[in-house]
Amino acid sequence: MKKTVTLSLLVTGMAVFGQFKEDSIQFSKISSEILNNGKGYTELKDLTKNIGNRLSGSEAYEKSVKWAEQKLRDAGADKVWLQEVMIPVWVRGKESLQIKTADGQWKKLKMLSLGNSEGTGGKDVSGEIIMVKSLEEYDRLTESQVKDKIVFFNHPFNQSYAQTFIAYREAGAYRRSAAILTAKKGGKFAIIRSLSSAFDDVPHTGNMRYEDNISKVPAVTIGNTTADELEKLLKNKKVTAKLNSNCGMKGEKLSHSVIGEITGKKDQSVIVVGGHLDSWDVGEGAHDDGAGIVQSIEVLRTFKKLGIQNNHTIRAVCFANEENGTKGGKQYGKTARDSNEKHLFAIESDAGGFSPRGISLEMDDKNSTQIQSWVNLFLPYGVYNFDGKYSGSDIAPLHEMGVPTAELVPDPQRYFDIHHTEEDTFEKVNRRELLLGSVVMTQLIYMIDKNW
Amino acid sequence: MKKTVTLSLLVTGMAVFGQFKEDSIQFSKISSEILNNGKGYTELKDLTKNIGNRLSGSEAYEKSVKWAEQKLRDAGADKVWLQEVMIPVWVRGKESLQIKTADGQWKKLKMLSLGNSEGTGGKDVSGEIIMVKSLEEYDRLTESQVKDKIVFFNHPFNQSYAQTFIAYREAGAYRRSAAILTAKKGGKFAIIRSLSSAFDDVPHTGNMRYEDNISKVPAVTIGNTTADELEKLLKNKKVTAKLNSNCGMKGEKLSHSVIGEITGKKDQSVIVVGGHLDSWDVGEGAHDDGAGIVQSIEVLRTFKKLGIQNNHTIRAVCFANEENGTKGGKQYGKTARDSNEKHLFAIESDAGGFSPRGISLEMDDKNSTQIQSWVNLFLPYGVYNFDGKYSGSDIAPLHEMGVPTAELVPDPQRYFDIHHTEEDTFEKVNRRELLLGSVVMTQLIYMIDKNW
Repeated sequence: MKKTVTLSLLVTGMAVFGQFKEDSIQFSKISSEILNNGKGYTELKDLTKNIGNRLSGSEAYEKSVKWAEQKLRDAGADKVWLQEVMIPVWVRGKESLQIKTADGQWKKLKMLSLGNSEGTGGKDVSGEIIMVKSLEEYDRLTESQVKDKIVFFNHPFNQSYAQTFIAYREAGAYRRSAAILTAKKGGKFAIIRSLSSAFDDVPHTGNMRYEDNISKVPAVTIGNTTADELEKLLKNKKVTAKLNSNCGMKGEKLSHSVIGEITGKKDQSVIVVGGHLDSWDVGEGAHDDGAGIVQSIEVLRTFKKLGIQNNHTIRAVCFANEENGTKGGKQYGKTARDSNEKHLFAIESDAGGFSPRGISLEMDDKNSTQIQSWVNLFLPYGVYNFDGKYSGSDIAPLHEMGVPTAELVPDPQRYFDIHHTEEDTFEKVNRRELLLGSVVMTQLIYMIDKNW
Repeated sequence: MKKTVTLSLLVTGMAVFGQFKEDSIQFSKISSEILNNGKGYTELKDLTKNIGNRLSGSEAYEKSVKWAEQKLRDAGADKVWLQEVMIPVWVRGKESLQIKTADGQWKKLKMLSLGNSEGTGGKDVSGEIIMVKSLEEYDRLTESQVKDKIVFFNHPFNQSYAQTFIAYREAGAYRRSAAILTAKKGGKFAIIRSLSSAFDDVPHTGNMRYEDNISKVPAVTIGNTTADELEKLLKNKKVTAKLNSNCGMKGEKLSHSVIGEITGKKDQSVIVVGGHLDSWDVGEGAHDDGAGIVQSIEVLRTFKKLGIQNNHTIRAVCFANEENGTKGGKQYGKTARDSNEKHLFAIESDAGGFSPRGISLEMDDKNSTQIQSWVNLFLPYGVYNFDGKYSGSDIAPLHEMGVPTAELVPDPQRYFDIHHTEEDTFEKVNRRELLLGSVVMTQLIYMIDKNW
């Protein structure tokens, strides 16, 4: 009996080892193919340099829809189509922010209106600046202290965290709620210090919110250096700010997400890999999220090129409107639900095209434990961290429907230096780092397609 | 009895947990201090922009000696001194490489002589180019096929590896031995394709070797684009190359490594953290190895700033002449041996100022197992990989004396795009990535100082 058990354990052990070896060889083929022949880097150059930034509703976004359609065909997708989605149209227009001390001249500050903010309608709006460093400090201010003032939320990005996303989430509260808080106490508009890890003067835009029945005051952002200078100025003097801006919502528009797939050989249940095709209206949307787009297309191309027979349908989705509405992700989820299309798994890449370090898993323990058990296959590619329990915002609707979802976790040190700024350009992306992201997503999808 | 065991296990467990918690808090203090107040990034800017590249024997290197001395004092070192070391003096001088096809004009190529190579003594040396792709291919050539020819070693950097250092080591054989191999079969000089992961035309210099009793023919390098073009040209035509260069060894010179330490409170056994102060004579020596220098100085400053009472002496060593002789490291080892100075541990940072991912350990199993057991303390800082079994070349002499040695393992994707080139500039270094390297080395030294 003992011998039999030992033998059967041995056989099982050899089978497990044989399996590991086979997967390991496939991982290596995927990596070699992409690192040597990957097209993502040159495609990203094309997208960023020939189309550039591409806010939902802009002409550039519509160009990028055609571009993505073509690239998915080039990648060898069996089927490519556009998914209709109504998107909000926000337009920046002209904007300027100036300050003046009691004894001084007006001085222009480098600034950006926050995305989705209403402007001043082309009129000057001015008032005295009051500064707070935290939400708690703002809470202590009375309505009479804020009324008719300009509120400067000067909360610094916390450099202490090794993981920059923690600092981003903390500082995010200011970007999202500054306008609402300011309006609630009668302030005229809000200035926030940018959510930036850089020691420079680059303003970072990004989404903000309004609430029903609360006046929609403008919210703008300034870079770290300007924020520091303003803080210093405010220590000794009263400072007046004057904003003139034309930004605002201009209704809705019909646009599209772009989808390509390679058909499953066994069934048509769907594995999604995606990123968002839109970007903010500054820079080139290279890391955010041109990277995720070209990486997702690369996954399809690699399956085709290596002739991997996928059991399930593998679908690359270039979501519309992540930045200021996530309408693409919502529409995708709705369509999947309405058509009763079974989704096995979805992963998004939307944290920059940096060296991958992990995969964040938002799913039940059984599934996440299985993926974590593959760690030794991923380690040679620098991927060790499966501890995150979140996934991309475009696939949140799928997650809500019960689909196991995930997000690629790249190195987070450089992202918030350039996120949502003029500096998010192709030059900031490294070829090998970008391609390794595609490698890891292709490897993961290979494993899921085979085992689920 | 059982109760006692359980209780004592519980007490031990609580002690272990208490210990972990205490260390974890100290790790966090170190990280916060450096990420918020670290001086390494601005010091690197100063070193690279105000001194620039600093090959051993150059005036710039001597400036950097004074610079490092001052920075170690600024960091609060209890003792700072210069260690004498005789270094080779290699000078590049003017150089040009041209090619001509049978029907064409002479055309200048972008090139660099390899470090330590002899030149042509200012005379034109020309001959027909023969190309090989591998050492094996070269071995098959007869002497008469090579005699009076120019040998073009066109071995490409292998992009397939996720770990670029493997490709670098493989391609390194060409850089080191091209001149010897060429001379052995009577060739006039060698051209090698650069050890470069980039898709550009930047030539990468680096050390090469000669052997006694084998003629010292010149060796030069060209970037990837030029190498590709030359390869294409050679498919259809005979191509003549003409080299004119003045480089060569100009004897030896007395110079210095720079050392600073904070005295041990319990004993004077030494923990070394270091990098090399010299660089190649192109670019700014930012990642290689200005990064290692400012990171090492940061370790001392952080111990002082946080008032950590170090049991053993912690010494930052800025080694001279790593690039073309490793004389600084050899002299340091010799001095330690001659003075019978006990060294507990040494770590070098010489793989770029990128996001740290691990610590490579060259030491006996007992010590490496203990360091590996600290992995959960390091994981929040992105450090997971303790599998490497090598350490920096400057501390190899210490290792040979039996000292446990280590090397910081940063992300390797971008290093060989810029290594030993005009492109290794301050702009390629990210503040947070650089500082995290200091964080991890300070944390490791804190643990070793406390536990060894």
